[in-house]
Amino acid sequence: MARTVDVAELVARAREGQPRAVARLISLVEDGSPQLPEVAAALAPFTGHAKVIGLTGAPGVGKSTSTNALVAAFRRQGKRVGVLAVDPSSPFSGGALLGDRVRMGDHATDPGVFIRSMATRGHLGGLSWATPQALRVLDAAGCDVVLVETVGVGQSEVEVVSLADTTIVLLAPGMGDGIQAAKAGILEIADVFVINKADRDGADVTARDLKYMISLGRRDREGPLWRPPVVKTVAARNEGLDEVVEAIEGHQRWMAEHGELEERRIRRAAAEIEAIAVERVRVRFGQTDQLAKRVVAGELDPFSAAEQLISANLGK
Amino acid sequence: MARTVDVAELVARAREGQPRAVARLISLVEDGSPQLPEVAAALAPFTGHAKVIGLTGAPGVGKSTSTNALVAAFRRQGKRVGVLAVDPSSPFSGGALLGDRVRMGDHATDPGVFIRSMATRGHLGGLSWATPQALRVLDAAGCDVVLVETVGVGQSEVEVVSLADTTIVLLAPGMGDGIQAAKAGILEIADVFVINKADRDGADVTARDLKYMISLGRRDREGPLWRPPVVKTVAARNEGLDEVVEAIEGHQRWMAEHGELEERRIRRAAAEIEAIAVERVRVRFGQTDQLAKRVVAGELDPFSAAEQLISANLGK
Repeated sequence: MARTVDVAELVARAREGQPRAVARLISLVEDGSPQLPEVAAALAPFTGHAKVIGLTGAPGVGKSTSTNALVAAFRRQGKRVGVLAVDPSSPFSGGALLGDRVRMGDHATDPGVFIRSMATRGHLGGLSWATPQALRVLDAAGCDVVLVETVGVGQSEVEVVSLADTTIVLLAPGMGDGIQAAKAGILEIADVFVINKADRDGADVTARDLKYMISLGRRDREGPLWRPPVVKTVAARNEGLDEVVEAIEGHQRWMAEHGELEERRIRRAAAEIEAIAVERVRVRFGQTDQLAKRVVAGELDPFSAAEQLISANLGK
Repeated sequence: MARTVDVAELVARAREGQPRAVARLISLVEDGSPQLPEVAAALAPFTGHAKVIGLTGAPGVGKSTSTNALVAAFRRQGKRVGVLAVDPSSPFSGGALLGDRVRMGDHATDPGVFIRSMATRGHLGGLSWATPQALRVLDAAGCDVVLVETVGVGQSEVEVVSLADTTIVLLAPGMGDGIQAAKAGILEIADVFVINKADRDGADVTARDLKYMISLGRRDREGPLWRPPVVKTVAARNEGLDEVVEAIEGHQRWMAEHGELEERRIRRAAAEIEAIAVERVRVRFGQTDQLAKRVVAGELDPFSAAEQLISANLGK
């Protein structure tokens, strides 16, 4: 039996910026505590302040270094910063291999920065379940900015988009050529492109190709048009990060002007509500073994079996 | 309005092995046709014969070449072979970039081979939705073996496991070192390991490391123990593929002896039924915008919103 937690007190302490209270709340979220609905209800009135920045890119482009440098840039502006590092690449073995304090050493002792690695293991739908709740914790705890960093592999990139107000796609020279970018679908998800390791050969070519792809890709879009800027950085030397922050702020201003921020947040909340509701329903379904056996035997097709499952457990 | 199809006739023609009927049925499945339940019901009595082989691995290990060579090996045994090539890496841009006939040129004109690239775009849950139905089509059409080939990136590997009777994980020398393998969780999902490009330096080291990791990883498993064999191939020169087929057959015999095949298929069907039922329920939920707006405004938390959604649409 898990210990019952005094949620109201924990939220009050998190609101005062006590790191241990914040950590405890995120743990409750991550572990899928039975008190999760209570936690969510207690947090709700204090949410909506933080800007959520998604940061994604292929392995090797320097995501952690960039996150680190971006945190420093926001800190120079006096902002409180939260970081959620999500690694969905390990569904079975689970978890980030490096400790939070090791990987974000620069900010380990800064009380204005809260860093957390999220394991997505065991969470149905990966990011879609625990991460939005962890975001709410950091938001309620007074973070002005929350950076969500993920490994750039297909599905997780899409999920970052559903979480973030502004999505940054990181590339590196030679890795981000046009076809790769188009294939990975990153043209559609990026609000800001960052070419990291821009001191390397080929950075200009990558930037030029990217701008060309952007000009092609967005031509026939409906609605207001945001043209993602392309910013060059050398994150390991802290170069170009203020420009990234400017680009983010530019995107946020554009969204505010076009009502897009509200739109995105509503879409995000809708997806979140639906995911929770679906999970609730799934629990009600209970065992499906008998139906599954009949499907395996060819006596029943899976659609008829699903209908039977619904009518037996949800009525109608 | 989509044209209504004579499903019974189409299934009859697919059962005679007519490629166009098979292709048409898979298209109905992939497009999420309203006739999908009818198709599934018509196929059910003819399913359960095909062995489903999952084939996954990181980009660059030679998946397509290996699939091609493996098809040839099964053809030498006189088996009818289906191939489903699934590329989930492109959620937005959608679809495999290469045509089916281009990528599997060797077998393009062989009537004993049916090849299909699946786009996972737009399918909720990626593979979990359309691919099992496409499998049923190939199964009912008389395929003895269906190979499901996916890009090896996290989630998709897991989904291959949920589809396949036997899962092959492809590695290449230098790419498949121990930590990488452990990190990717592939030790847990592989029934057979294939080290392709085994004529390259380091193949023996990779094989040895892998065997060592296998011996460590499976030690404390419950239930009957299958120790995945490690087979070396040079798929581009058609070397070692008969040994892969032998390893697959060995695994299938082992599963039959331990009742594991039935177990896996029941688990697979159960997941499939649940996914379909969840999708049906999701449709019933309808619009969530009003609830989402209240969540964004901090008036409501997402868990309470989900409860309201359920009680408004499903009763209770």
